[in-house]
Amino acid sequence: MTLDAAAPARTAGTVRVVGSGLLGASAGLALSLRGVDVVLSDSSPTQAALARDLGAGRLAAEGDEPSLVLVATPPDVVAEVVVAELAAHPGAVVTDVASVKGGPLAALRAAGADLRRYVGGHPMAGRERGGAVSARADLFAGRPWVVAATEAADPAAVARVHDLAVDCGGVPVAMPAAEHDEAVALVSHAPQVAASLVAARLRGAPEPAVRLAGQGLRDVTRIAGSDPVLWAQILAANAGPVADVLEELRTDLDAVVGALRALQADPTAPGARGRLAQLIAAGGAGRERIPGKHGGAPALYATVVVVVPDRPGALARLLADVGEAGVNLEDLRLEHSPGQAVALAAVDVLPAAAARLAEALRARGWTVPAS
Amino acid sequence: MTLDAAAPARTAGTVRVVGSGLLGASAGLALSLRGVDVVLSDSSPTQAALARDLGAGRLAAEGDEPSLVLVATPPDVVAEVVVAELAAHPGAVVTDVASVKGGPLAALRAAGADLRRYVGGHPMAGRERGGAVSARADLFAGRPWVVAATEAADPAAVARVHDLAVDCGGVPVAMPAAEHDEAVALVSHAPQVAASLVAARLRGAPEPAVRLAGQGLRDVTRIAGSDPVLWAQILAANAGPVADVLEELRTDLDAVVGALRALQADPTAPGARGRLAQLIAAGGAGRERIPGKHGGAPALYATVVVVVPDRPGALARLLADVGEAGVNLEDLRLEHSPGQAVALAAVDVLPAAAARLAEALRARGWTVPAS
Repeated sequence: MTLDAAAPARTAGTVRVVGSGLLGASAGLALSLRGVDVVLSDSSPTQAALARDLGAGRLAAEGDEPSLVLVATPPDVVAEVVVAELAAHPGAVVTDVASVKGGPLAALRAAGADLRRYVGGHPMAGRERGGAVSARADLFAGRPWVVAATEAADPAAVARVHDLAVDCGGVPVAMPAAEHDEAVALVSHAPQVAASLVAARLRGAPEPAVRLAGQGLRDVTRIAGSDPVLWAQILAANAGPVADVLEELRTDLDAVVGALRALQADPTAPGARGRLAQLIAAGGAGRERIPGKHGGAPALYATVVVVVPDRPGALARLLADVGEAGVNLEDLRLEHSPGQAVALAAVDVLPAAAARLAEALRARGWTVPAS
Repeated sequence: MTLDAAAPARTAGTVRVVGSGLLGASAGLALSLRGVDVVLSDSSPTQAALARDLGAGRLAAEGDEPSLVLVATPPDVVAEVVVAELAAHPGAVVTDVASVKGGPLAALRAAGADLRRYVGGHPMAGRERGGAVSARADLFAGRPWVVAATEAADPAAVARVHDLAVDCGGVPVAMPAAEHDEAVALVSHAPQVAASLVAARLRGAPEPAVRLAGQGLRDVTRIAGSDPVLWAQILAANAGPVADVLEELRTDLDAVVGALRALQADPTAPGARGRLAQLIAAGGAGRERIPGKHGGAPALYATVVVVVPDRPGALARLLADVGEAGVNLEDLRLEHSPGQAVALAAVDVLPAAAARLAEALRARGWTVPAS
């Protein structure tokens, strides 16, 4: 399923996209697919030309009269670019995609910008790799797109940014700037720091130690491969809320280290094991609050584990058999087995379908260990 | 591909498995598949009977004369059970599967146990769910199985534990107890604490905030759903090495919080952004040390992203087409799109095959955004 290019665009007039990186070029691709006139601007003419060549729009020219400006520059220059665009296009609504909303807003207020025509935005989408070359028309498909309107904003301007998010395939979520910044500190920025902190410990580790790494470590550290310069900007722009979350985390960390040192000195130290169990249980309770697939309530799927030979087409045959059993696959994870040509596929399905699926797969010759 | 049941077992004689939980029952299943005589013992007769019913072996009886004893009890009673088994079976080699090796060894020394016949072990395998009911004959397939022999151990005893690991499908890795405990603190125990610390922050979060959660948070916190009581035992048993890693982590965390507070007070604070970028870069460098699939050198796969409709059989059709293109799939991740019936499949393949695969899939009608 791709973006429904046949649905008419809600966005009327020309959209000017400033900044032709991953987010700007992806928005340009999505809007162009719907027939919206997109003009591309970038401080690097090469980036803008690349985005044009990919189909994200045409190059900006003298005389363009955008009705909407989407600022998709690096976060540290967003505010000054928004100020300049508001001034250069007095008839246009201006929005942005910066991952922090409070700081730019304060800078706009300080600069005396026209806040009736500015409505901040933040699509919750990204990739580990950036640049126009990584852009996709469906980058925003189904993802939350925060629309952070101030009280000063013209309701018509808010509606235009809402429509832009929908035209890009996103799901608009109205949320004030301060609330947004606290939310992303919690669900995105502090977790990024934690993943990097864990991964950083591996730099000097002995080779035999890292060879014991399993899927758990891979998952915890996957996002540690993110771009350092971009992330320094993001963290700096949301410094207060991120520090608040990390200080809470440090309080718990101190309690864990204290309990461990107490147990090191005396394995029967009263209360210490209980404090460790409490921390793990608290993590489990927090984990359960994360929405499942499609943003609904936390899903409780049943997992059917299947042994899969590591050969071309084997997983395909498995999933064909899942499909022929009439069961909808809700999620799929592959567990790799270091040193051996064996993989385990963990197939998540609705609990009511699990036993039937296991039976159907065994009947087709798959090894489905009892679970 | 399943365990090669046709290969003759290296293990001779009767293997006594003490503790019929996930690890004990899985070892029993693997050994029984190879025709090894396995006798099962558990402090809970129900658990032992369940493991027997699953095919893990027969119930222990008077007169059993095991040549090898595998202790798979909860970690906090391993040492006393090993002492008892060494005494009860003076002709047998005794090993265990506890995830910490130094503490039990010290307890055995203190108890004056016969260390010629004891060789500690630790298969790097597990599941989020425990109990015999979750056991699988292939739980250890291809996973590292640490064999932590002391200098006192009889070389023949070490060889027997090595062979047991192979018969269970594992890959034996010789590593002294102290080195093992530091390694698992780094690659398993401290990451578990970090995941739990991040997830614990979500308990009191506003509902709109957690609804912004993306795949990054899901990955970082996946293992936070682990069993609190078991993990309190594991962390307590490896208290010193885990605390050492967490204190290093805390030093970096303090530097991050310090940089963030400096930036909060003064967005131009000298050096603060650089310290944040350094932390993220250090995490990236550590992340690159984690071995890829099959335990080899870090893999650098190319990712082909494909848009997949959320319908039964769609992913199967995709993977059938991947197979027909003659490309071996190295890894697969599904990216879910909250609120919309769209999924993105990230298909990892060898870099040389990526362009060909993308072309082949487009030719078969798939949407493969340029990357």
